[in-house]
Amino acid sequence: MKTNPGRFFEDYTLGEVIAHAVPRTLAEGERALYHALYPARHALYSSDAFAADCGLEGSPLDDLIVFHTVFGKTVPDISLNAIANLGYGDGRWLGAVYPGDTLRAQSQVIGLKQNSNGQSGVVYVRTQGLNQRDEVVLDYVRWVMVRKNRDTPAPQTVIPDLPDVVTPDRLVIPAGLDFSDYDFALAGERHRWSDYAIGEQIDHIDGVTMEEAEHMLATRLWQNTAKVHFDATHREDGRRLIYGGHIISTARALSFNGLANAQMMVALNAGAHANPCFAGDTLRAWSQVLDKVETSAPGVGAIRLRLVAYKHGAKPFALREKDGKYDPSVLLELDYWALIPL
Amino acid sequence: MKTNPGRFFEDYTLGEVIAHAVPRTLAEGERALYHALYPARHALYSSDAFAADCGLEGSPLDDLIVFHTVFGKTVPDISLNAIANLGYGDGRWLGAVYPGDTLRAQSQVIGLKQNSNGQSGVVYVRTQGLNQRDEVVLDYVRWVMVRKNRDTPAPQTVIPDLPDVVTPDRLVIPAGLDFSDYDFALAGERHRWSDYAIGEQIDHIDGVTMEEAEHMLATRLWQNTAKVHFDATHREDGRRLIYGGHIISTARALSFNGLANAQMMVALNAGAHANPCFAGDTLRAWSQVLDKVETSAPGVGAIRLRLVAYKHGAKPFALREKDGKYDPSVLLELDYWALIPL
Amino acid sequence: MKTNPGRFFEDYTLGEVIAHAVPRTLAEGERALYHALYPARHALYSSDAFAADCGLEGSPLDDLIVFHTVFGKTVPDISLNAIANLGYGDGRWLGAVYPGDTLRAQSQVIGLKQNSNGQSGVVYVRTQGLNQRDEVVLDYVRWVMVRKNRDTPAPQTVIPDLPDVVTPDRLVIPAGLDFSDYDFALAGERHRWSDYAIGEQIDHIDGVTMEEAEHMLATRLWQNTAKVHFDATHREDGRRLIYGGHIISTARALSFNGLANAQMMVALNAGAHANPCFAGDTLRAWSQVLDKVETSAPGVGAIRLRLVAYKHGAKPFALREKDGKYDPSVLLELDYWALIPL
Repeated sequence: MKTNPGRFFEDYTLGEVIAHAVPRTLAEGERALYHALYPARHALYSSDAFAADCGLEGSPLDDLIVFHTVFGKTVPDISLNAIANLGYGDGRWLGAVYPGDTLRAQSQVIGLKQNSNGQSGVVYVRTQGLNQRDEVVLDYVRWVMVRKNRDTPAPQTVIPDLPDVVTPDRLVIPAGLDFSDYDFALAGERHRWSDYAIGEQIDHIDGVTMEEAEHMLATRLWQNTAKVHFDATHREDGRRLIYGGHIISTARALSFNGLANAQMMVALNAGAHANPCFAGDTLRAWSQVLDKVETSAPGVGAIRLRLVAYKHGAKPFALREKDGKYDPSVLLELDYWALIPL
Repeated sequence: MKTNPGRFFEDYTLGEVIAHAVPRTLAEGERALYHALYPARHALYSSDAFAADCGLEGSPLDDLIVFHTVFGKTVPDISLNAIANLGYGDGRWLGAVYPGDTLRAQSQVIGLKQNSNGQSGVVYVRTQGLNQRDEVVLDYVRWVMVRKNRDTPAPQTVIPDLPDVVTPDRLVIPAGLDFSDYDFALAGERHRWSDYAIGEQIDHIDGVTMEEAEHMLATRLWQNTAKVHFDATHREDGRRLIYGGHIISTARALSFNGLANAQMMVALNAGAHANPCFAGDTLRAWSQVLDKVETSAPGVGAIRLRLVAYKHGAKPFALREKDGKYDPSVLLELDYWALIPL
Repeated sequence: MKTNPGRFFEDYTLGEVIAHAVPRTLAEGERALYHALYPARHALYSSDAFAADCGLEGSPLDDLIVFHTVFGKTVPDISLNAIANLGYGDGRWLGAVYPGDTLRAQSQVIGLKQNSNGQSGVVYVRTQGLNQRDEVVLDYVRWVMVRKNRDTPAPQTVIPDLPDVVTPDRLVIPAGLDFSDYDFALAGERHRWSDYAIGEQIDHIDGVTMEEAEHMLATRLWQNTAKVHFDATHREDGRRLIYGGHIISTARALSFNGLANAQMMVALNAGAHANPCFAGDTLRAWSQVLDKVETSAPGVGAIRLRLVAYKHGAKPFALREKDGKYDPSVLLELDYWALIPL
């Protein structure tokens, strides 16, 4: 058979490195589409002049463009036969990506655990995105539940020891970043690092109603090929599941309203897609401040945020039910570090 | 509260200048999206070679890309709590914008009038769009009806004295523009300045059926954040109101068929959104020639046009009912000057 | 009347050359949109670095971007009053198109045949796409059935003698193309020229459910103005017909899964749109290998493929019924040559 059947649980070997296919040059077109697909307004990613005033060579591509592009490359090898995308962790952006850069991706299998039913298992991979100079620009761990296809013996269980959070000493600040002369008026809000308190919750107020054409355009743009997003005949209920990354980008863009100065994502501590989302749902978001640290870069602080996307109808700030399960309205919980002016 | 509540009528002071947030670099991506979102075919904005033959350095970004980008920046400060966008006037494009340019916007409050019910008032602002060299590229007046939030005394009523039309001596022709060797075959129609008669009406024939995904992509692209365009739960009827600028661009693009040589918009004399438009509506357009003048640039004439967008079902050329109200089918009336080869 | 009524059958003269309007500069924005609109993953069109490793100056614009742009320019002159787009033949891509290039189009009438009912006729045109250096980058024949408007005498019947297939000696390989060091892992599949057998059929497995917003964005992007794609009031059934080129691009992109290395389209031997497609249909595709030849370029083979798009519900590999008519599920049959590493 010439087509890609995807891999099954028994096809992964601990330690193997998978080079993902189809490198991608990203340019001004992807930036414009990102602004059309999401209500993105962080000034550093909107204006070359603003970014230059912050010490960068120009406006980088949104950190989530990098994330989605790298993630999309992994789908044919990692999650084509996935039952569930279970989580993300220990992720870091290691260098800015500019229009004209070309990205490729590779993943190493760092953990395997067959489920007790023998029908599936969990695969842990550490994925890296590299640019045309072979510099690693993104590094994160993802784990997915994958179907078994053959009745093979279970591999030895190895569960990687992942940190709950990327410790501040491991955050990588883009070279040259300087928020000393940061223009709060141009950025859109006056709130700086010192204005946020640990534990503080922010309701981002705005909502976006999901459309089939929009989530499909977005998911395709990142060359993500998972059938369930595009083919209405794939699920029994005839619905197309919205790519989790579309939820991440929508929620992160909505978080501008209240966190306009949390400019750059530098670490992905943890992330989970709590419930499925479909066209017609209206998505809202709230954030909570989990931690704050200063950094060595001039004027640059780091803020650790919990970003939660939820469906209209619920109230903000709900997260889990008493039994620990996610509230049925919650679509996404994302724990990340962002850079913000002191 | 960290999020932006928007301003209310009592928050505006006569003469104050508001610097709007989030500068934006526009490039080839925005140009491509404009062509995907609208049936735009004016050759000067489609081909670098054609624009160079007309004396420009390359194909500028569509004048309405500039308008929407500047307008979008004003929304969080001017119209987040608007009840109605009442009108535009005294608008001029003052310089071409090219891919790579960065725009920002500022507005001055030039008029205030509290409504007799004490619940709302009209705010008049003069808005300017500026590029990265601080050159003003767009200047126009807009007035909106804004809710009051507190029981404050009415401000002194000041209504700005706006001209009904931008007089020809105030039109700014882009430096270098020369239509002496204009290629009518490449441009798509043979009709020149002298072929149009004052009073002449043109039915632009074509129609476009509106889609939720399309108007949302467009509105987001200009970083316009008004909730009513994106959130189906915002209005009681569950409908998303289409951004008036989407109507302007659709109608202007449709007007190519009959006015293919009315290449550049240089002044916005007046404009009003007559009725709301929703997904599923089919939009049509007609134009009327209101005036004609020659200009000092070689081969360049100016034509003053009334552009009317209306909903399918009505006949072209309807505008107002006997009582002076807009016909219920009319969505937009726009009065502008365009440059056209003599 | 100032608007374009389109041409009718009696308006075409054998041998006349029609210069189509509105030249178009294509850039990174059109490339990004192509990736958003179609699940396109051929590495040569995705990565500048990959294309450079294959001897090109960078990643060219997808061959179908060139085709659609040129085709779109012909619509106002050729098919505005068309009853049916009957077929394509003898098509060749003659040079790569890169971001920043400007395309225009011209057609020569090479055949005319009035139908026996006297109400319509078939017009054959040879269309050329030219870049800003007046180099022909695309050349193909199309024939359409066009309405008559006046009761004129039938012209002499001339049916051009078209080859069933572009013979391999006429294929033009882009200057510099070299697949000697082709990276199959990066390209996404290991199958090379020698792995495909004449007669072999490939089911491309994946499916895409069509959306109004997506086909309209695509069709508008190529400045194709045919009313039937955009205006839901145009057909009696209130449906918008999807532009045939949207089907071609969707099917070609789906064919990546099984033909990832069939990188460049170099000839269009024949093509027909078998049945109409509407939003809501789920499109699938299969291919059959029709022929194979080596070329003079290092490491470069050519493969002749039949690409068939069909609607979900039917099985793959159906094409025609016993009476020779297309199976009702078939949307497109396209016969083309592609370049593939030996």
